[in-house]
Amino acid sequence: MFDVVRAAHGELLVTDLGRAREFYCDLLGFVVTEAAGSALYLRGYEDVVHHSLVLRRAAAAGCGHIAYRVAGPDDVEAAARWYAERGCRVRHLTAGEEPGQGVAVRVQDPLGFPVEFYASMAPAERLLQRFELHRGAVPLRLDHFNLHVPDAAVADRYYRESLGFRCSEYTDAGGQVWASWLHRKDNTHDVAVMNGPGPRLHHLGFMVGEPMGVIRACDVLAGAGREAAIERGPGRHGISNAFFLYLRDPDGNRIELFAGDYLTADPDMPPLRWSIDDPRRQTFWGHAAPSSWFEQAMLVESIDTGALITPTAPKLRDRPDFVT
Amino acid sequence: MFDVVRAAHGELLVTDLGRAREFYCDLLGFVVTEAAGSALYLRGYEDVVHHSLVLRRAAAAGCGHIAYRVAGPDDVEAAARWYAERGCRVRHLTAGEEPGQGVAVRVQDPLGFPVEFYASMAPAERLLQRFELHRGAVPLRLDHFNLHVPDAAVADRYYRESLGFRCSEYTDAGGQVWASWLHRKDNTHDVAVMNGPGPRLHHLGFMVGEPMGVIRACDVLAGAGREAAIERGPGRHGISNAFFLYLRDPDGNRIELFAGDYLTADPDMPPLRWSIDDPRRQTFWGHAAPSSWFEQAMLVESIDTGALITPTAPKLRDRPDFVT
Amino acid sequence: MFDVVRAAHGELLVTDLGRAREFYCDLLGFVVTEAAGSALYLRGYEDVVHHSLVLRRAAAAGCGHIAYRVAGPDDVEAAARWYAERGCRVRHLTAGEEPGQGVAVRVQDPLGFPVEFYASMAPAERLLQRFELHRGAVPLRLDHFNLHVPDAAVADRYYRESLGFRCSEYTDAGGQVWASWLHRKDNTHDVAVMNGPGPRLHHLGFMVGEPMGVIRACDVLAGAGREAAIERGPGRHGISNAFFLYLRDPDGNRIELFAGDYLTADPDMPPLRWSIDDPRRQTFWGHAAPSSWFEQAMLVESIDTGALITPTAPKLRDRPDFVT
Amino acid sequence: MFDVVRAAHGELLVTDLGRAREFYCDLLGFVVTEAAGSALYLRGYEDVVHHSLVLRRAAAAGCGHIAYRVAGPDDVEAAARWYAERGCRVRHLTAGEEPGQGVAVRVQDPLGFPVEFYASMAPAERLLQRFELHRGAVPLRLDHFNLHVPDAAVADRYYRESLGFRCSEYTDAGGQVWASWLHRKDNTHDVAVMNGPGPRLHHLGFMVGEPMGVIRACDVLAGAGREAAIERGPGRHGISNAFFLYLRDPDGNRIELFAGDYLTADPDMPPLRWSIDDPRRQTFWGHAAPSSWFEQAMLVESIDTGALITPTAPKLRDRPDFVT
Repeated sequence: MFDVVRAAHGELLVTDLGRAREFYCDLLGFVVTEAAGSALYLRGYEDVVHHSLVLRRAAAAGCGHIAYRVAGPDDVEAAARWYAERGCRVRHLTAGEEPGQGVAVRVQDPLGFPVEFYASMAPAERLLQRFELHRGAVPLRLDHFNLHVPDAAVADRYYRESLGFRCSEYTDAGGQVWASWLHRKDNTHDVAVMNGPGPRLHHLGFMVGEPMGVIRACDVLAGAGREAAIERGPGRHGISNAFFLYLRDPDGNRIELFAGDYLTADPDMPPLRWSIDDPRRQTFWGHAAPSSWFEQAMLVESIDTGALITPTAPKLRDRPDFVT
Repeated sequence: MFDVVRAAHGELLVTDLGRAREFYCDLLGFVVTEAAGSALYLRGYEDVVHHSLVLRRAAAAGCGHIAYRVAGPDDVEAAARWYAERGCRVRHLTAGEEPGQGVAVRVQDPLGFPVEFYASMAPAERLLQRFELHRGAVPLRLDHFNLHVPDAAVADRYYRESLGFRCSEYTDAGGQVWASWLHRKDNTHDVAVMNGPGPRLHHLGFMVGEPMGVIRACDVLAGAGREAAIERGPGRHGISNAFFLYLRDPDGNRIELFAGDYLTADPDMPPLRWSIDDPRRQTFWGHAAPSSWFEQAMLVESIDTGALITPTAPKLRDRPDFVT
Repeated sequence: MFDVVRAAHGELLVTDLGRAREFYCDLLGFVVTEAAGSALYLRGYEDVVHHSLVLRRAAAAGCGHIAYRVAGPDDVEAAARWYAERGCRVRHLTAGEEPGQGVAVRVQDPLGFPVEFYASMAPAERLLQRFELHRGAVPLRLDHFNLHVPDAAVADRYYRESLGFRCSEYTDAGGQVWASWLHRKDNTHDVAVMNGPGPRLHHLGFMVGEPMGVIRACDVLAGAGREAAIERGPGRHGISNAFFLYLRDPDGNRIELFAGDYLTADPDMPPLRWSIDDPRRQTFWGHAAPSSWFEQAMLVESIDTGALITPTAPKLRDRPDFVT
Repeated sequence: MFDVVRAAHGELLVTDLGRAREFYCDLLGFVVTEAAGSALYLRGYEDVVHHSLVLRRAAAAGCGHIAYRVAGPDDVEAAARWYAERGCRVRHLTAGEEPGQGVAVRVQDPLGFPVEFYASMAPAERLLQRFELHRGAVPLRLDHFNLHVPDAAVADRYYRESLGFRCSEYTDAGGQVWASWLHRKDNTHDVAVMNGPGPRLHHLGFMVGEPMGVIRACDVLAGAGREAAIERGPGRHGISNAFFLYLRDPDGNRIELFAGDYLTADPDMPPLRWSIDDPRRQTFWGHAAPSSWFEQAMLVESIDTGALITPTAPKLRDRPDFVT
């Protein structure tokens, strides 16, 4: 096995880097660490390393890969072996092949996602107390990945049993796992797996420092005439207690900005069960989410061909209207 | 003429006082000044007088009256004369007839609304700095009335020309006034008149001290299982810049809680014009309001019979989907 | 008499315009409307007119003048006559003599302050909803002047009886007025007069939209290594309930940023009395203010010579340690 | 070795339980799980177990013990052995001996502190989303202990090398460790060790969900006439970036309420070094702390006799005025 520390960064595909930069940096406040050819390497104000968000120019929107930080170099190697033994495609990356990043391995995991594991990244100035530079929503760091998978029970088991994640909360559909929030670091989640056509990335979740950062994001976007980017929220999730906002970037890629979280350090902390019939689960205040939020998600790349992978239909299908 | 100082209080009709008290006081945080027979007299934390909200037990939901504070006793008399001269029904109230209130006059105004004018009210302890008593959304005071009227242009003219209100913002529908925000005190409005079946009270607006009070109201209601009371918001109005939340009480009466406002003291401050075609006018962030918000409003009482008045259809009808 | 609408702008003297601009604009977020020769004309995000703060280059720090908006042109003329009749120095300003401002009159008032009265100012774009441009503390507008005067009882009477201000709160020192908060617009004050060597301007008060704006001002200043500008606060005033912060600009001029206020529209609202012995009066949380806050204030100019006026010692002197 | 999960609870000694309950529960908002004889067992709104704060009636103020949650029952046993082997006093507690807690071990650690290790605690209802019950500052959970020790370098080494803590930030006094912030869970600290007469507990740190909770604590205390409980703050720490407030309970015991933190999950995250000469280290905004904050701290009990232990003078003494 290998020791996953946390969800660390995500790579989104955008068709126009300038337009994406205006959205993520000028409006939302992400910081550019490096602009390298066809990609931008961004970080939040809390990050002390090179990047937690990569925007790469591509022919269509989507997700290039998601990445977990592992404990040390041995864990990178162990991950490579583990996936190879299970017949997964594995690609080794040399130090710097992804700018700022040490040696890494990228795999097509058993769920079909392009997942990277790395143990070191170049330092970057921490801007947490450079308050005079803070802008927009003041995003602090990447917090989690939210994935659509055809069988959430399988994905939940994979993350718990194979990768050592713990479940903080889950949605129960008549005894079956409909969705599960799983973590390695000490908060609600590093990854959530949800029943839906997959492999697809539903969103990257970025933490902001206080609820007003979420409100400010709405105001800033609308002030600039970009209110159409607001897909859902602001609102409170029952699950995770996050005060959330979902945005679609100019290419339609989805990110979440959220504040509010809780500590999950105790190893015997019991997972919180939500019935799929409880409407407060999804929006604590009772608001319905738009259908786009349920139906649309980002296609992910093949690590071999770079082609976007056609998703498989979900196993559980009889979704009530209000279901995640 | 007579000198109107500000929107001062509203009387809502509720079918169950205990249930209403739980909603307004236990959850939202209004303070009971007096519980007198079939009515509750409530105030906010900034109020220094007896009440800014009256809940009166009745057979059906609705609005008993709205009340403006006038400058002095002479203005009460002048108001009585002014309305009588124009053929409006006028009723004189002795001091204490409405608990806590001095002599007053209640009229059925030219728009059909039951409107009270008074110049003095019994003092009550100001709780603004009794922070240890603050609860729920921490409502500070009544701020404004929002009225549905069949002809907004007529109502706008009545308030400006007859009562000396100034317009801060308005919605223009092809050269016609669709809605108008009007004030006597130095902020955005004491009253708004909107095109719709009327006379009906659309909502009473209460000010909270900071945006998080609005978020807290949502959380408190949902925590208590009362999330169904949330009809619209939280969101930002383009018009008035208010960070708003619309709630329906257990009888369906509607109130707004909001934060954010601006100063309108300068007498030559030009009214801000919004085109009816600008979607940010209503929700700055682009969200649609639910149809109930457009269609439903509170019937108002006849000051003679106490019967609820049947509204008249609006003059302007070709409303786009998104219109106020 | 003449009709004063509100405190409208102040002119501060700075020795280095570039350094002042960095402080007021780059860090605190004031907006430049016009940079004209030896002066900067700034406004807040709520302002719809040319300026509410003027920074003028001068040999030493101080206050050039403070200005009240009056209702109309006749009030400008009436003010000129009123002060001339009382033997005050009066200077007429043509339209545009102060950039952006209509005809005005500047007087040395009976308390010795250089005070301007004007009735019209050129419009400027309101940036209240241009949230994408908001920076720093997001100052909204000038709210009030705080003046040191040798006899607060005299100054209180002058503002109430001659200029028609109403008192919202005052400090009582054994039956004598130690300080008084006075308003024309509908909030706590347009001007406060405090016992101390005068005429001196203690501070200009600017409103921010929410308490976190005050916290953000501290963080931004400290992030930029300018924490020495923070003289007092953040804290809560007992008087006025303001959540306050006092800053010294690079020349030592003092401004206040604050959030929180209340409505004072009712003409019979009784002034709130604070005993000089109540420590919560000044800092509700019990903190002592630094001695600089009590002792230092800005000298004001002679409208004739431009020289800074030597203040007179206060009449009441036996100040307890904690007194305003 | 044994696996410490996190700082879990603290026991403070109070001379009057009723007065302490009013302070912690009625004003600050802590929740009573159990009132058992001479002690109160309290928790925050995020806690899912029986207690994170114990108030025990005693003849004098002080600290009964601090407690770390360890991973499992084996770790409790391993801790007992480890301390016994090093000649420390060790006492075994049966399940329920401390109400709500499983078997535990209490030791007098090498630094002289009474420290408890336990692996299980009775569940309690999580009130995080029972927003209608939230009161006061809305404390979420215990976060850390702050300890005065005569030799911070020794204490730093003990926690890092023997207990496996990682250092997030530290104060360097000419090459010597003056103070160190150390963590097991993934945020800034579970414990800080500071140069000073020890063993003494400087404070228990409790997390609140948003900065306004800190402001609200001040307002609530002052509203109730208890502003004397505010010792220091609100302010921003340079170290840890916490927005902090220090309070003294009715017996003089000190707690911190704070918001703001950051993730420390990466095992190679370099400790942030602060020079003892940097004034922003302690208060980012430049404010001086009162001398009481430097000089006073809580004596701790002997686990054998219950007597309060006389502290030893610190090794490093030439403290600049502004030093932690």
